[in-house]
Amino acid sequence: VRQVIAVDMGGTNIRAARVDATGVILARHTVPTPASASVEIGLDALTEAISAVRDGSEDAAAIACPGPLDTVRGTLVSPPQLPAWRDVPLERLLEERLLLPTHIINHASAAALGEWTFGAGRGTAHMVYIIAGTGIGGGAVAHGTLIEGRAGMALEFGHTCLDPHGPICGCGLLGCVEAYSAGAGITRRAHEAIARGEGAGITEAAAGEAITGESVARAARTGDAAAVQIIATAGEMLGVGVANLLHLFDTEKVVIGGGMTRMGPRYWEPFMIAIARHTLLPYAGVPIVFSELGDNAGLLGAASRALILRSDALHTSNAMP
Amino acid sequence: VRQVIAVDMGGTNIRAARVDATGVILARHTVPTPASASVEIGLDALTEAISAVRDGSEDAAAIACPGPLDTVRGTLVSPPQLPAWRDVPLERLLEERLLLPTHIINHASAAALGEWTFGAGRGTAHMVYIIAGTGIGGGAVAHGTLIEGRAGMALEFGHTCLDPHGPICGCGLLGCVEAYSAGAGITRRAHEAIARGEGAGITEAAAGEAITGESVARAARTGDAAAVQIIATAGEMLGVGVANLLHLFDTEKVVIGGGMTRMGPRYWEPFMIAIARHTLLPYAGVPIVFSELGDNAGLLGAASRALILRSDALHTSNAMP
Repeated sequence: VRQVIAVDMGGTNIRAARVDATGVILARHTVPTPASASVEIGLDALTEAISAVRDGSEDAAAIACPGPLDTVRGTLVSPPQLPAWRDVPLERLLEERLLLPTHIINHASAAALGEWTFGAGRGTAHMVYIIAGTGIGGGAVAHGTLIEGRAGMALEFGHTCLDPHGPICGCGLLGCVEAYSAGAGITRRAHEAIARGEGAGITEAAAGEAITGESVARAARTGDAAAVQIIATAGEMLGVGVANLLHLFDTEKVVIGGGMTRMGPRYWEPFMIAIARHTLLPYAGVPIVFSELGDNAGLLGAASRALILRSDALHTSNAMP
Repeated sequence: VRQVIAVDMGGTNIRAARVDATGVILARHTVPTPASASVEIGLDALTEAISAVRDGSEDAAAIACPGPLDTVRGTLVSPPQLPAWRDVPLERLLEERLLLPTHIINHASAAALGEWTFGAGRGTAHMVYIIAGTGIGGGAVAHGTLIEGRAGMALEFGHTCLDPHGPICGCGLLGCVEAYSAGAGITRRAHEAIARGEGAGITEAAAGEAITGESVARAARTGDAAAVQIIATAGEMLGVGVANLLHLFDTEKVVIGGGMTRMGPRYWEPFMIAIARHTLLPYAGVPIVFSELGDNAGLLGAASRALILRSDALHTSNAMP
């Protein structure tokens, strides 16, 4: 059975693994991401994590990276989590160090590919994946092909607009799905409520710590009116956004991962109601399920990309070697 | 050079053509659509139009049809323009009459495929096509493959939501792109303005006829304040919707067809401003152009589908025979 190197490179940790063609993780090693250090120090950390899992039998590597990136040129463009990494030709630099064919892939695309190959989306030809946590991203498979777009930046779902006069998002745009439905947006709405003199239960639930999506959810469970409203709107607006994806992709299955999956019915009931309310009949009834791979989705998606790497049909086939 | 039969079946006319593999229309014939008649009479009309252009050298046929349809089963599901055609297995019925391999394809998908193969999108691997007229539809090509979805209904862009509390659309949903930016939506906004005692210039421009998108546009050109606002909002909201598509598809080119292309700068300037305002930098700068094929886009897309039909790789290749 073939083996490949898979890496999930985040703003906090670099997680490397050796994975076989059936998706079994044979070895794994994690090092902290030197996020504010130079590219050279970052490459050393990547190489260290990868070296710890290599046994010489791997024939390809893929790295799930933060965007924006350019998968055609193989470069990281300007990842906000890695301020020093501007226009870094990561594929070439790693190939020189690893002596393995190496590909980069957008984080959310990797997670989508992981769920499609080894997780909740396997067996489908068409799947939409959403990751909703602090931010919101996504990936889509159509006709058995991961849709990456011209530079690997497709399915930037979190910054699609659900109201051009809506609240400002962390990205500077107005009314993004992420501004309503992700942890950061929920936190922002909570601070606004507190500034208006509402949401006493939110302050209480935070218990002196910084307010997070989770503390707002806790306040909602105790019945705080402002928190209930913020969580319900967050779920509702994610549902409106997913309804848009149903109309656009005519997909077989929607898979949802990320921390928001732990939000409970105060988030997910308004989500399902919004989908019913905003979806035309021929697009309704698509199964919507939570991720099976959890935090390993990106890592296993990188493995899937590395496995495909040796195939002749990188962008046109779902055949696994 | 191979030849195929292409048909564009609309609510008003059935247009049939014999087309060669380079997209040249060698013969064409149009008959009225017997829209309110039985399926049998409709099939007779289709056969009549096709017979008039056949010369025996064709080896495949494709029909651009109104949705909702099911391209996997080869059936029209419930096209609103053809009330009698519910769950009609059109592929099988036509194959029996024509003795040619026959495929159906959604109208807007066909127009997208036509522009991609023979028109403004040729040479790209990634293209988004929008048709904006009385209604709004679309089609997308990614990695050289038309995205049709599980049943051929993908890119129902007109019914993606831009404001869950927005105006009601003809489809019954709220805040659809189509409710703002298509002819029917513009007309509805104009009637509302007149009911409020505004838009005297719209009534004047209609000159006793029914109000249309064109008469509202004429009123806007004379400076009628309500008409100016309606047309500007229509263009702006189409821009917000297209910005969403830029984030989702990371595409190379956007091609726009349909009657709205004749709306002029009062529609298209707010459109371009909205795109600039609602698009993140890495997704900006994508060329946005008008259709090259105009009313022939659907017909030539059906030809492209029929040409691909003989290929071994229907959904995974852009190779033309």
